[in-house]
Amino acid sequence: MPKQDLKRPIGVFDSGLGGLTVVKHLIKLLPHENIVYLGDTARVPYGTRSKEAVEKFSFEDANFLLRMNVKCIIIACNTSSALAGEKLKKRIKIPVLDVIAPTLKHAKNVSKGGKIGIIGTRGTIDSGAYKVKFAVPCPLFVPFIEEGKTKGESLKLISKDYLSYFKKHKIDTLILGCTHYPIIKNIIQQEMGKNVILVDSGKAVAEELKNLLSSSKMLNEGKTKGKKEFYVTDLTDRFTKVAEMFLGQKIKNKLAKIDL
Amino acid sequence: MPKQDLKRPIGVFDSGLGGLTVVKHLIKLLPHENIVYLGDTARVPYGTRSKEAVEKFSFEDANFLLRMNVKCIIIACNTSSALAGEKLKKRIKIPVLDVIAPTLKHAKNVSKGGKIGIIGTRGTIDSGAYKVKFAVPCPLFVPFIEEGKTKGESLKLISKDYLSYFKKHKIDTLILGCTHYPIIKNIIQQEMGKNVILVDSGKAVAEELKNLLSSSKMLNEGKTKGKKEFYVTDLTDRFTKVAEMFLGQKIKNKLAKIDL
Repeated sequence: MPKQDLKRPIGVFDSGLGGLTVVKHLIKLLPHENIVYLGDTARVPYGTRSKEAVEKFSFEDANFLLRMNVKCIIIACNTSSALAGEKLKKRIKIPVLDVIAPTLKHAKNVSKGGKIGIIGTRGTIDSGAYKVKFAVPCPLFVPFIEEGKTKGESLKLISKDYLSYFKKHKIDTLILGCTHYPIIKNIIQQEMGKNVILVDSGKAVAEELKNLLSSSKMLNEGKTKGKKEFYVTDLTDRFTKVAEMFLGQKIKNKLAKIDL
Repeated sequence: MPKQDLKRPIGVFDSGLGGLTVVKHLIKLLPHENIVYLGDTARVPYGTRSKEAVEKFSFEDANFLLRMNVKCIIIACNTSSALAGEKLKKRIKIPVLDVIAPTLKHAKNVSKGGKIGIIGTRGTIDSGAYKVKFAVPCPLFVPFIEEGKTKGESLKLISKDYLSYFKKHKIDTLILGCTHYPIIKNIIQQEMGKNVILVDSGKAVAEELKNLLSSSKMLNEGKTKGKKEFYVTDLTDRFTKVAEMFLGQKIKNKLAKIDL
């Protein structure tokens, strides 16, 4: 890649703001990279929609990032990865990473007994993309998290209900197959018990991207902190509050509302 | 209105499937009318989006109904009514009814002490369109209902949390300011106590439409049962199950997925 091209940003898209948990890991692992993030907040959530709708939306998201001249794309949404990942990878000429393959690889590496479970949206779970034996859709987790209701008795009861299946089957590793879920990691860990390893797809995909950029000589070799730009398709008053919860830091960077 | 025009359908739109609780009342009150329903299931929920987004989506919904040659339009979504109702009424040449005015009128009629409260989406409540003193957004009710989780301890805890404000202020009437909420009427009534009157916006708007069609000589004078057509912008496997829960009967009629 020509030297000036190394500075092209990493493109990251998600159905909404959950993908910012991926950006959080990217900032930590690849601090010099420029990042362009797109959250399709006008049409979030993807997790309850049809394959056809998710494919259409995902291509629109990716095309926006391509217009922003990104050097690679991370599909930071498990539902998009599951329902549109393969098609996006085939049709787009720059590297496209989805969260599924790295997350699954990481889960297999850390699992002691190979009894791996996964939780995700209905779309992700029904797609079977993770090819994991123990799988449960947890559709109410996303609304709870988006509402900032990340603790409390009601969420605990919902968790108990969703996770009882995994406890019955004595899994040793649980994939958090939705980029929202790391926000309620504590509640899930408490319910599953401390011996079950939780795998965060944000961390897994950030590590995979670092390896890829490094081995393909695509790393930004600048020494300054990378620039971050955030784009959303709908902007409400609550945006900053929710976004900062996912990102784990203040948003001081460029933020704009765009149409797809 | 020329006689052949009386057979033109009533158009009803909603962000998703909640508006079918309005259709349920229309079928009961106006059994001879033809009905065309549009649910924007590719972009549901509207309740968490900006005014700008809700206006854009609502106009696209209404334009679809106009192309279907409807004789009037019901905005069966409280969020659309609150954020786009006035603009739609001004710009569209056939009668447009939103759920707010009829619901508020009905609430004032039935309230004994004038202490009226309202629950709704964040969009509806923040808009202040209902001009009611006691108002609380209940953003988690919609996802619970869409998931079919219409009873159970977790929903009861959420209700207790949302409704405590009204109990403190001793309201006598509570407006269910979202077409989803009649599905969990029992839980809300149980929490509020049997002396608080719950007002269902579906019933109120259906009665208002009947009066309007009657006084403006727009009633369909046919004797046969009206035809129903259902359109959605995204179709998943769960559609029929959820739709029938709202409609309170089996869907045997025309159902199609369309693009806006």
